[in-house]
Amino acid sequence: MSCSPVVVLLSGGMDSATCLWWLCDRQPQADIHAISIDYGQRHLVEIDYAAQLATRCGAHRHQTLRLDLSSVGGNPLTDPEVQVPAAADRRQAATVVPFRNLLFVTAAAAYAETNDIADIYIAPVRDDYETYRDCRRQFYDALETTLHLGGSVDRAMRLHTPFVDKWKSEVIALGLRLGVPYELTHTCYTGRRPACGQCDACAERLAAFQANDAVDPLPYDDTRS
Amino acid sequence: MSCSPVVVLLSGGMDSATCLWWLCDRQPQADIHAISIDYGQRHLVEIDYAAQLATRCGAHRHQTLRLDLSSVGGNPLTDPEVQVPAAADRRQAATVVPFRNLLFVTAAAAYAETNDIADIYIAPVRDDYETYRDCRRQFYDALETTLHLGGSVDRAMRLHTPFVDKWKSEVIALGLRLGVPYELTHTCYTGRRPACGQCDACAERLAAFQANDAVDPLPYDDTRS
Repeated sequence: MSCSPVVVLLSGGMDSATCLWWLCDRQPQADIHAISIDYGQRHLVEIDYAAQLATRCGAHRHQTLRLDLSSVGGNPLTDPEVQVPAAADRRQAATVVPFRNLLFVTAAAAYAETNDIADIYIAPVRDDYETYRDCRRQFYDALETTLHLGGSVDRAMRLHTPFVDKWKSEVIALGLRLGVPYELTHTCYTGRRPACGQCDACAERLAAFQANDAVDPLPYDDTRS
Repeated sequence: MSCSPVVVLLSGGMDSATCLWWLCDRQPQADIHAISIDYGQRHLVEIDYAAQLATRCGAHRHQTLRLDLSSVGGNPLTDPEVQVPAAADRRQAATVVPFRNLLFVTAAAAYAETNDIADIYIAPVRDDYETYRDCRRQFYDALETTLHLGGSVDRAMRLHTPFVDKWKSEVIALGLRLGVPYELTHTCYTGRRPACGQCDACAERLAAFQANDAVDPLPYDDTRS
């Protein structure tokens, strides 16, 4: 197992936190550079949790890169004028920030190349396919080729998506075995703590814990129905 | 000729300005959305000129998106601590911002998808190959595939690079015929007006005008050697 430095995209959510712990477990000697992206998201609080997660797992560095997408607008995750839909509304498509993962990986690749790092990890999961097309394996394969062709250095950059074929419930099962401190993750799209328990992100999180007969350590808003 | 709206990446430099005029000439009825990127560049003044160019050619809209790469650092174009090299130093590679064009196109694609636009124009030229690998046709072909796979809408996004096989001197020849107001473009990496005349960008600009037996309308620093 290589101990070269690696970049991990760490949103502060459950999937990327699990990816970080999985990587620490597999490559305990590697210098891990955790990258979070401030893209003007409403739930920016997730980056505070990402920083805590990076510290807790002993990452070499945690760096926040700022890519302000709020000027693109029209999306409830970045536009304060647009309300976050409830999961019950079945309007998760409204929460798509176009090409968000492409932007994240590109920023991570710029950081990686500047710091002479060849491996980038990102943690899309199988559940994400339906709504977010930039979570599919074919997309990441094409992107890896693009990075190889566009990099300033003629060296293959490897883009790892260890959970791309796993359901979120399987990822959480893995994380529970690895001891991921899920109380330090943030999921709720509204950015609230306690979490709203109503949005698509909360609904998927709760379902993943339920599928594992586990209790989510996060507090939720008592007023939820 | 289609009159659908289009996105043009407009840096404020000569190549993208020429692309904008070429497009206005070919599709005079199209709504042109000119996008400039503020990536923390030292020569941010180029965006002021981009705005003037967009107004002059009658673009439907000029929008600046902010992607702050200064946190990645280590590059003279974004890091005030690093000096811009002179062309005579033969260190243009030092001015590479890793994956800059990938970031620009991705941001433009996010804007395009949000605004239901399927065509994106960017103006790399043949001279850029040597130093900037993300100016090659193969790179843009792979990126077009990536955009198609990652887009939220199952519709091919077309990425146009009309000048990718043309030398900068040919592009300027075209621009001179089309009446591009080159006095409203900005090229110098240092961001100075009058331009320094010494950096790689100035050197290439001056050579392109010279190759056309034309005079660059921009003022240059009189103290240059």
